[in-house]
Amino acid sequence: MTTRTRHEPLNGVDTQALLSTVDAVKATPSLAAFQFRAVNRWVTGTHSRSEIRGFYGAGREDVTRFEDFVCEADHPAVLVGTGKAPTPVEFLLHALAACLTAGLVNVAAVRGVKLTEVEASVEGDIDLRGILGLSEEVRNGYQGLRVGFRIRGDAPEEVLRGLVERSRSRSAVYDVLTTGVPVEIDVTTG
Amino acid sequence: MTTRTRHEPLNGVDTQALLSTVDAVKATPSLAAFQFRAVNRWVTGTHSRSEIRGFYGAGREDVTRFEDFVCEADHPAVLVGTGKAPTPVEFLLHALAACLTAGLVNVAAVRGVKLTEVEASVEGDIDLRGILGLSEEVRNGYQGLRVGFRIRGDAPEEVLRGLVERSRSRSAVYDVLTTGVPVEIDVTTG
Repeated sequence: MTTRTRHEPLNGVDTQALLSTVDAVKATPSLAAFQFRAVNRWVTGTHSRSEIRGFYGAGREDVTRFEDFVCEADHPAVLVGTGKAPTPVEFLLHALAACLTAGLVNVAAVRGVKLTEVEASVEGDIDLRGILGLSEEVRNGYQGLRVGFRIRGDAPEEVLRGLVERSRSRSAVYDVLTTGVPVEIDVTTG
Repeated sequence: MTTRTRHEPLNGVDTQALLSTVDAVKATPSLAAFQFRAVNRWVTGTHSRSEIRGFYGAGREDVTRFEDFVCEADHPAVLVGTGKAPTPVEFLLHALAACLTAGLVNVAAVRGVKLTEVEASVEGDIDLRGILGLSEEVRNGYQGLRVGFRIRGDAPEEVLRGLVERSRSRSAVYDVLTTGVPVEIDVTTG
């Protein structure tokens, strides 16, 4: 493990900016209030499309993301869709891997660990008897998720493992997926 | 509301295939075992990319989705990323809207309701003091999610509202997000 100052950019992370962000929020806690949004529109059958761009954070509407991101979702043929896009449940796997990875890369930068490879394979099991209404004992969602990380960097094994552990302990997606979140649904018709 | 047979295709849904799928799983419960997967690779900084294709279900590896779906994720500039893709937490909003919408469109087809528009606006609030490690009382994830559906179709308001309610009660993503799921993390280094 090479010795570095804490402030040197590393792993593509502007470490100084990261530490400054933490200090700014510490000084002005209202900057910590964020709101993220997506608007999804039905296309046909099980196919839909979300637009994602605007969010509120750090005391204002963000204007640094210039174009809408477009994400589609669909069921595969075996679930009566057309397979034009990932299923909604697969996006949960992507969100989990991406959140844990972004976090551990940031932590590595602050700890002075240079990473060369991070790969996360995620899988989840679902018993469809829940969704299909065929069993009251079977839940609708995943019964369990497994994440397999492969990490390479210029640090001993226990340091690399510590990056994942620290990221897990501060991951927004891991928290939501393991603990749950209240969801309110309103409907307007006509 | 127009009277239709239960088996007529509607809303882009092959209603007969949907009902046949339910019957097939009822007759052979092992067909209900599904496994979904994603492989995420770090690009640089908070930017990563997932590939999604293969899954197991209905008794075999699915081969009907011919190409990998590629999803990226990144933090925005204010969270020390480059804003090249949605944040991981925004994919949770997309997954929730897409799952509820696919479900309600299927339910509508079976119930003989022709839909003309379904739009779901989803938003979620996060207090970043959790993620940044500045408060032990603040959770890492969303504090709450709100989904606003706008639905139009050839049925009375209470029937349209019933579609959302039925979808919510059988949604895999809603279940995971509201109830949580066990997540296991393994790490390989070197």
